[in-house]
Amino acid sequence: MSPEPTKTYQAKVFVTLKPSILDPQGRTVERALAHLGQQASGVRVGKLIELQLEGERGDVETRLQDMAVNVLSNPVMEDVRWELEEAPVQAVAGA
Amino acid sequence: MSPEPTKTYQAKVFVTLKPSILDPQGRTVERALAHLGQQASGVRVGKLIELQLEGERGDVETRLQDMAVNVLSNPVMEDVRWELEEAPVQAVAGA
Repeated sequence: MSPEPTKTYQAKVFVTLKPSILDPQGRTVERALAHLGQQASGVRVGKLIELQLEGERGDVETRLQDMAVNVLSNPVMEDVRWELEEAPVQAVAGA
Repeated sequence: MSPEPTKTYQAKVFVTLKPSILDPQGRTVERALAHLGQQASGVRVGKLIELQLEGERGDVETRLQDMAVNVLSNPVMEDVRWELEEAPVQAVAGA
């Protein structure tokens, strides 16, 4: 009955502070690097959230967008983007 | 005298816990999603560190690898990978 196969997908969600928001953690990393003689600027620390989703591709995409926008990020302060790919067969077999 | 031009590069460093290391933060996110009716598994929370580096490409690549491996990640518990691309001209002009 299902038009699309149910598969396991590997998703990556990238959450970064909006450019206008100060990032004290990034400033701290920048200073730590400078103390070690490593010059870098504009250091920003964000999150990379990896997760697995099962279902039909279209449904999984919808659920991932909902999670990324409504749960995993704060739309007031953060930008979010995501990638979705089929999980390697090994991950399915090992589940 | 310089064989390569000095440019501003935008780097992204992805730091993730090694698969064998427990991730309580990821487990918490997974449970929070489940409470909201969103099914996901294998949730892992890592870091995305963005930074800018100036110099010749080869030199910048060497410095980035050094920072990523020796400063920004813990090789005992974390995996790290990185991407490097030329920063948009706007970022250079705005520096």
